[in-house]
Amino acid sequence: MRDPPSDEPPIYRSFPDLVATLEPILLRNGTSDEVARVLATNCASAERDGSQSHGLFRMPGYVKNLRSGFVDGRAVPHIRDAGTAYLHVDAGNGYARPALESAMPRAIGKARSAGACVLAIGNAHHNGPLWLDVEPFAEVGLVAIGVVNSVTYVVPHGGRKRLYGTNPMAFAVPRMDGQVLLFDQATAAMAHGEVAVAARENKLLPEGIGLDASGLPTRSPQAILEGGALLPFGGHKGSSIAMMIDILAGALTSSNFSHQVDWSAHPGAESAHTGETIILIDPTRGNGSLRMFTQRIEDLVAAMADAGQTRLPGERRLAARKLAAERGIAIAPAMWKQLMVL
Amino acid sequence: MRDPPSDEPPIYRSFPDLVATLEPILLRNGTSDEVARVLATNCASAERDGSQSHGLFRMPGYVKNLRSGFVDGRAVPHIRDAGTAYLHVDAGNGYARPALESAMPRAIGKARSAGACVLAIGNAHHNGPLWLDVEPFAEVGLVAIGVVNSVTYVVPHGGRKRLYGTNPMAFAVPRMDGQVLLFDQATAAMAHGEVAVAARENKLLPEGIGLDASGLPTRSPQAILEGGALLPFGGHKGSSIAMMIDILAGALTSSNFSHQVDWSAHPGAESAHTGETIILIDPTRGNGSLRMFTQRIEDLVAAMADAGQTRLPGERRLAARKLAAERGIAIAPAMWKQLMVL
Repeated sequence: MRDPPSDEPPIYRSFPDLVATLEPILLRNGTSDEVARVLATNCASAERDGSQSHGLFRMPGYVKNLRSGFVDGRAVPHIRDAGTAYLHVDAGNGYARPALESAMPRAIGKARSAGACVLAIGNAHHNGPLWLDVEPFAEVGLVAIGVVNSVTYVVPHGGRKRLYGTNPMAFAVPRMDGQVLLFDQATAAMAHGEVAVAARENKLLPEGIGLDASGLPTRSPQAILEGGALLPFGGHKGSSIAMMIDILAGALTSSNFSHQVDWSAHPGAESAHTGETIILIDPTRGNGSLRMFTQRIEDLVAAMADAGQTRLPGERRLAARKLAAERGIAIAPAMWKQLMVL
Repeated sequence: MRDPPSDEPPIYRSFPDLVATLEPILLRNGTSDEVARVLATNCASAERDGSQSHGLFRMPGYVKNLRSGFVDGRAVPHIRDAGTAYLHVDAGNGYARPALESAMPRAIGKARSAGACVLAIGNAHHNGPLWLDVEPFAEVGLVAIGVVNSVTYVVPHGGRKRLYGTNPMAFAVPRMDGQVLLFDQATAAMAHGEVAVAARENKLLPEGIGLDASGLPTRSPQAILEGGALLPFGGHKGSSIAMMIDILAGALTSSNFSHQVDWSAHPGAESAHTGETIILIDPTRGNGSLRMFTQRIEDLVAAMADAGQTRLPGERRLAARKLAAERGIAIAPAMWKQLMVL
């Protein structure tokens, strides 16, 4: 979600400074040291990469979910070896990212030794951008496909009621020189945050984005937010992908489907108590060399440019990261004030 | 591709009769006994399931590709054990389906023993419907995600030239009582066969389907077919999925990307000399029981109906299969005549 335009100049903070600002907020609201460290780093990374929907914007949500008791900030993930190519992690009703980080070295080891590995994280609350969950695997030379199901916002194709979450899928592959090619995209026709911005600005949406509470097409963002639903991207095909993601992230991890998430016993809470699945593949098994594989990826990237694609998926994120490294992370003053209150 | 409406009543053939009709056609055009058996069964299965684009309609293509020498009808697939969770199959420039069938038992064994398995088939020509490649795995209790890249027809988002194939993705999961829930969908905004039908009938297409040879949007199916391109479904998101599929099916299997397929040395040939990747996951690793997993799938199917989705993906195919079992496979007389010529 983008902040409303402001004339006030942004505040710049270095990455370590921002992490050090966020950690005590999380600690004071009931997390363990380890969870605070992981979440603060993850949230600051999202902000650094220019994600206004998954960065500092999410901090009030972290606080509310922890205070309400819906999410356990002291959860210790339990990793179960479920096969030479399978790790199951029970996040213990905590956030997904600490569970992912605890299992990452073993998942990488399994993928390298078996050729592939499924990392299934259940009983978890996912709250960061999905690209940050797949990128580290590609940085060490693996191909990663990640999916998360979330809270119900999206109507299945031809339906009238919310069923799926915005259910993102992310994909990351290693490029030459340690670079990563990746995308991270929701299966909703528009991100929930963008609908909220349009509602705030009283703007009509394009056709094909959502339905109102009675299941009829609407261009009103308010109608979508107040009991309506988002449509999947790309009609029945996006709807099928949303279904696949609810199955891979929800059923495979023994966690809730998007439509089963229920925070009604925890006033103030609003968090996806669901699952996350990451499929890891060792790309050297086909022809024996990471260099040959990454050269193929460079060939494809060159062909994409030749076909006229002017922007690679993920390019804007890398540009934001570079800028943040040079001059610090730009934070809107209103957001900074909100952090100080927390 | 649908046949033009005809007043002539269809010819009905049993499944074994149809296989027995197709086998000698393939044998006479240079396949081994095993390849003829596998392809005839696959092609008859597609026709039985109501696929008019991947059934008998494809027989002239099989014949042309075999005669031109572009595809080796006597290829013997070479299976390489590439890890406890990885099988690499070199199809030896033959059709993909015989390679898949040769590796299927070992792939199932690996997925059951390791928890997951990547089945990467390279140096292959895929010519059947992808759903038939994932369905058998779900029938034995595995989750399967299959992707194939093909010949270049689809422009990347924002681009002007063909780059990706129609690059389908199929997904299959076991339901209760041995049933399967699956989808199989191209990443193009419209199937190539449907564009060809519109061209034959001189109909304009909806907006957003394709570009002409100069890279401008067009509603003319002829302009798309004559040097133009199809657009991906769902804008930049479908384009990213097409990219992912070209990487998983092309690069991972050490095969051509869609845009690298070149049959110019084999007049008459037109076949996707590419790769196919199937990711298999054992769904019992999460909670220990296939019954519990399939119950979750039934719960989701019920929730889809409750949300107003009136048709499950794959439902039409199952209905066609049931009808064919009752009264035989209905074949248009024109198609039957064409078969008799072959």
